[in-house]
Amino acid sequence: MPSTSLFRGIIVPLVTPLAGRDQLDVPGLERLLERVIAGGVQGVFLLGTTGEAPSLTERLKRELVSQATAIVNHRIKVLVGITDTSLVDSIELAGFAAAERADAIVAAPPPYFPIHQADLRAYIEALAADCELPLFLYNMPSHSKVAFDVDTVRQLLHHPRIAGLKDSSGNMLYFNQIVQLAQERPSFHVFIGPEELLAESVLVGGRGGICGGANLYPELYVELYNAAAAGDLATIHKLQHRVLRLASKLYSVGDPPSGYLTGLKCALECVGVCSGRLAEPLRSLSAEKSASIKQHLLDLGLLDRQMTAVRA
Amino acid sequence: MPSTSLFRGIIVPLVTPLAGRDQLDVPGLERLLERVIAGGVQGVFLLGTTGEAPSLTERLKRELVSQATAIVNHRIKVLVGITDTSLVDSIELAGFAAAERADAIVAAPPPYFPIHQADLRAYIEALAADCELPLFLYNMPSHSKVAFDVDTVRQLLHHPRIAGLKDSSGNMLYFNQIVQLAQERPSFHVFIGPEELLAESVLVGGRGGICGGANLYPELYVELYNAAAAGDLATIHKLQHRVLRLASKLYSVGDPPSGYLTGLKCALECVGVCSGRLAEPLRSLSAEKSASIKQHLLDLGLLDRQMTAVRA
Amino acid sequence: MPSTSLFRGIIVPLVTPLAGRDQLDVPGLERLLERVIAGGVQGVFLLGTTGEAPSLTERLKRELVSQATAIVNHRIKVLVGITDTSLVDSIELAGFAAAERADAIVAAPPPYFPIHQADLRAYIEALAADCELPLFLYNMPSHSKVAFDVDTVRQLLHHPRIAGLKDSSGNMLYFNQIVQLAQERPSFHVFIGPEELLAESVLVGGRGGICGGANLYPELYVELYNAAAAGDLATIHKLQHRVLRLASKLYSVGDPPSGYLTGLKCALECVGVCSGRLAEPLRSLSAEKSASIKQHLLDLGLLDRQMTAVRA
Amino acid sequence: MPSTSLFRGIIVPLVTPLAGRDQLDVPGLERLLERVIAGGVQGVFLLGTTGEAPSLTERLKRELVSQATAIVNHRIKVLVGITDTSLVDSIELAGFAAAERADAIVAAPPPYFPIHQADLRAYIEALAADCELPLFLYNMPSHSKVAFDVDTVRQLLHHPRIAGLKDSSGNMLYFNQIVQLAQERPSFHVFIGPEELLAESVLVGGRGGICGGANLYPELYVELYNAAAAGDLATIHKLQHRVLRLASKLYSVGDPPSGYLTGLKCALECVGVCSGRLAEPLRSLSAEKSASIKQHLLDLGLLDRQMTAVRA
Repeated sequence: MPSTSLFRGIIVPLVTPLAGRDQLDVPGLERLLERVIAGGVQGVFLLGTTGEAPSLTERLKRELVSQATAIVNHRIKVLVGITDTSLVDSIELAGFAAAERADAIVAAPPPYFPIHQADLRAYIEALAADCELPLFLYNMPSHSKVAFDVDTVRQLLHHPRIAGLKDSSGNMLYFNQIVQLAQERPSFHVFIGPEELLAESVLVGGRGGICGGANLYPELYVELYNAAAAGDLATIHKLQHRVLRLASKLYSVGDPPSGYLTGLKCALECVGVCSGRLAEPLRSLSAEKSASIKQHLLDLGLLDRQMTAVRA
Repeated sequence: MPSTSLFRGIIVPLVTPLAGRDQLDVPGLERLLERVIAGGVQGVFLLGTTGEAPSLTERLKRELVSQATAIVNHRIKVLVGITDTSLVDSIELAGFAAAERADAIVAAPPPYFPIHQADLRAYIEALAADCELPLFLYNMPSHSKVAFDVDTVRQLLHHPRIAGLKDSSGNMLYFNQIVQLAQERPSFHVFIGPEELLAESVLVGGRGGICGGANLYPELYVELYNAAAAGDLATIHKLQHRVLRLASKLYSVGDPPSGYLTGLKCALECVGVCSGRLAEPLRSLSAEKSASIKQHLLDLGLLDRQMTAVRA
Repeated sequence: MPSTSLFRGIIVPLVTPLAGRDQLDVPGLERLLERVIAGGVQGVFLLGTTGEAPSLTERLKRELVSQATAIVNHRIKVLVGITDTSLVDSIELAGFAAAERADAIVAAPPPYFPIHQADLRAYIEALAADCELPLFLYNMPSHSKVAFDVDTVRQLLHHPRIAGLKDSSGNMLYFNQIVQLAQERPSFHVFIGPEELLAESVLVGGRGGICGGANLYPELYVELYNAAAAGDLATIHKLQHRVLRLASKLYSVGDPPSGYLTGLKCALECVGVCSGRLAEPLRSLSAEKSASIKQHLLDLGLLDRQMTAVRA
Repeated sequence: MPSTSLFRGIIVPLVTPLAGRDQLDVPGLERLLERVIAGGVQGVFLLGTTGEAPSLTERLKRELVSQATAIVNHRIKVLVGITDTSLVDSIELAGFAAAERADAIVAAPPPYFPIHQADLRAYIEALAADCELPLFLYNMPSHSKVAFDVDTVRQLLHHPRIAGLKDSSGNMLYFNQIVQLAQERPSFHVFIGPEELLAESVLVGGRGGICGGANLYPELYVELYNAAAAGDLATIHKLQHRVLRLASKLYSVGDPPSGYLTGLKCALECVGVCSGRLAEPLRSLSAEKSASIKQHLLDLGLLDRQMTAVRA
């Protein structure tokens, strides 16, 4: 099993650039990957919620994994989301990711049946038994309904194939308990999802963030992570303010609960990285709302800089 | 588009008999289908929640549709669930169902992103535009998180390809509103999910039930439907008591929230129809709990009769 | 303990007519009570959710109980809601109700702490131990957060001072289970809350309804109850349509979740019974919305008839 | 209006020591207040959730306010919770608190009707209009159902009588947004509820914590607050570990969701401060569980030290 010892810092939950229904935007993917690598991130997480994985076909998922691993070419880590309602499909995608030489896989609870924790634990053990890469648990109750309870994480903590947990619950009471647990096994990595909580999560012992905004502006999150890892509170306060401002500007233009994703993809189109197209059931922002995103990017000082960068 | 004018009465949300992981139990499927056809049901609904569709691979789903349509051979209606997190996968399965000459398709909201109603409506319209068979909406918020609001159903009511709605919410306030709506379009069929509500749903104007217990004991639900359709309250009370007793005995042995499904499959194994095996993330009942199901079947007078039937 | 053997039919969850903040509208109360008595109801339920009890002071609650019991003067049953976050306050109000010769008391779970079922059961037992009148349980999870689970009702079923349960959950799966339970103790009364479910609740074995609309139009609910008790399905369908139409017209003008109560009080003002004033935190409808209620009352044929009645 | 400019640091949400049903334990109250004053806290918050206010009679609430203000005698700040389902009762208690020369009042949304935000805002404005003391908003959605949305706080931010907000939601995404908002009005104080989040809340800009554990061990929380206010990360990590350990030991002995409160009161009895008695609907821990709390106190090194202190 490949080592996960260097997993820390910022991992980008990569959006999936789409040229059409069931059609990957390969040039957009390339621009996006080069952008985040240049921004200093430690890895990308393909096929997460931000990557709209559940909305994609198996075919497109595999094309994305192949293209992305080829483009990245081991310059940074590649994690592959394998969450699926079907265990067999998850295992097969995990095998494909291993064959493409990805670094790790990530699985949320299967998002249909509202199972209890004993079934969840058995499910994860069945999954881990048939997977080769290090497995990260993905706690995302707003989307997968079922959460990984603290006790369940405790029971899975020493499983040799389980490498850590990404917590997107936004519940810092939970996050703190998981961080405490992880002190029993230093190789168990705990990452935070919501970028607004990146700084404090690192201050209380987290390993880093898997933050959607890093698709757009990777340097900001990398610097914030570095400041938090160094305990540099003054820098944290300055950068945290920018993170919150970016989030409050870009993620609230579209209607909740998908405003984060529609805003992010629209912004990536505005700065010339890839199309703002989303996979059904999500839909792109209206022209009026897109104009509002563009204006916010200007206000945030992100548009000029980026367009120049992209044109160059 | 095939006519749906005869959809009424009992439709069985068929369990998917499994011989192993990703392996269909074809003899079990045949026994099960013959049993429910003999029991007088009007149709089967393949690949619903009771059929564990989200847990199955595309390959197994197609094998099931092919086998079931061949066995049924137009003796009763065949509805095929196409719910998926991916629109493209739903459309492809709908096309396969049409090619296998199924009678209708059934779709719940895509069960991952917590979308709002405007996106849900657009999603269903996109789905209907690319499907050939009559489409039933499937309201199942406990599993798909998102519900079809009454206003959304109103907006979809006259869509020529939408044939009705199955309501598994258990919320009779909602059901009554949908039945009232449907008076504006008599060809819009409203079915109830939970068998405990079958009788009252028909009394207030529903078209019938898609009731899991009919896998095990189809005659009971057919008789109850007939009594309700005829307004025969005395018979309703007698049969309703048996329906509630069966549900309270068999569906509460396994832990909630999946106790209904684990109990039902276990009971089908006990009476010799098919294996009690479930697809992950659900798991079969323990030996002790299976014995308890067997005892309940004896108490309910279902075991002897059925085993003889199966042996014959 | 007074007998509750005659509790069946329609009980009106009486609105509390208010002349100002912390000020009872006594003439309005008198008109309202005479109206519902003339309409043939079996009783009134003072100080329920429709009566805005939690928003009222102890002083006003007692004034209401005194005035209402005096006006009713045993012509119909009087039930008094004693739900409170404080057990001691509930017991004292129950004692007051007994002294004023009310017929029964009604208690929901205390609506602040999210307690578990064992604590709920102990709470109800402590309450019943210090109360003299027959006690009805009030299942209202949308407001009191905690529900009476079926098992808890089973454990309280044979308590000599507990007389029944009003179910306002809207969950007919639950209601059916409680009705089945109640067959073990015929003197345990099961009433439905939501008027849209009155007919079916009686058809499946309920004892009647505690229906808000009966403040406005008591005869409609009394007739519907009678039809349901007689199993007269044709009459049920005709009246049920009117009940649903009234609900859909009057209760959806105000914003949810309080649109039912704001619409009901506004309608009572429109027909000249009492002011539409609500106790904080609820607020009266705007002038525009009030006009819309008035138009709906005209469309429903309720305005002319009632205003004449009131003037007479 | 008294100044609130010195509100920062640790405020103890005081438990209400009870000698019996509706009976205050005055000697226990005195010991408790002296203990927390000696521990260095900035204030006490009477009649919050930890104080079981909703379960108490108006009479006992007033006795507590009188006794506590007399004992404290302006050595530290006294905040008084006025949350009630009845606005009039809240206003009257606020007036009483002012007459007893308390420093501020605290109000959660009225915890019965599930109101929308416009009604909540109007309610708070009505409350503030009739209150004399500075008012803190209390965000506690797990108990009061309704939350103060960020937009509602924005609209109330500059209200001259509103002094701040205590956030007990545990949602740091929300807390961060409120802290950002509060930068527009420096006199708007933002406090955190859950003690596990105290350190990070201060690091991101919070004013301090209203932490239940400070009833038992005030010095720990005062030191942790001081370390966080000074940005001393090493001390934070050491103390945070003790806070989490204390919480995980003491608050999980009783069943959720009230295990925090039953454990805290039991511990206070074990260390000799006051009785562990709770007001209905909560109940004291069993003898077995009390023994477990005692053992945990010994393990945490809290028992000897405290008993000596109390005896002295």
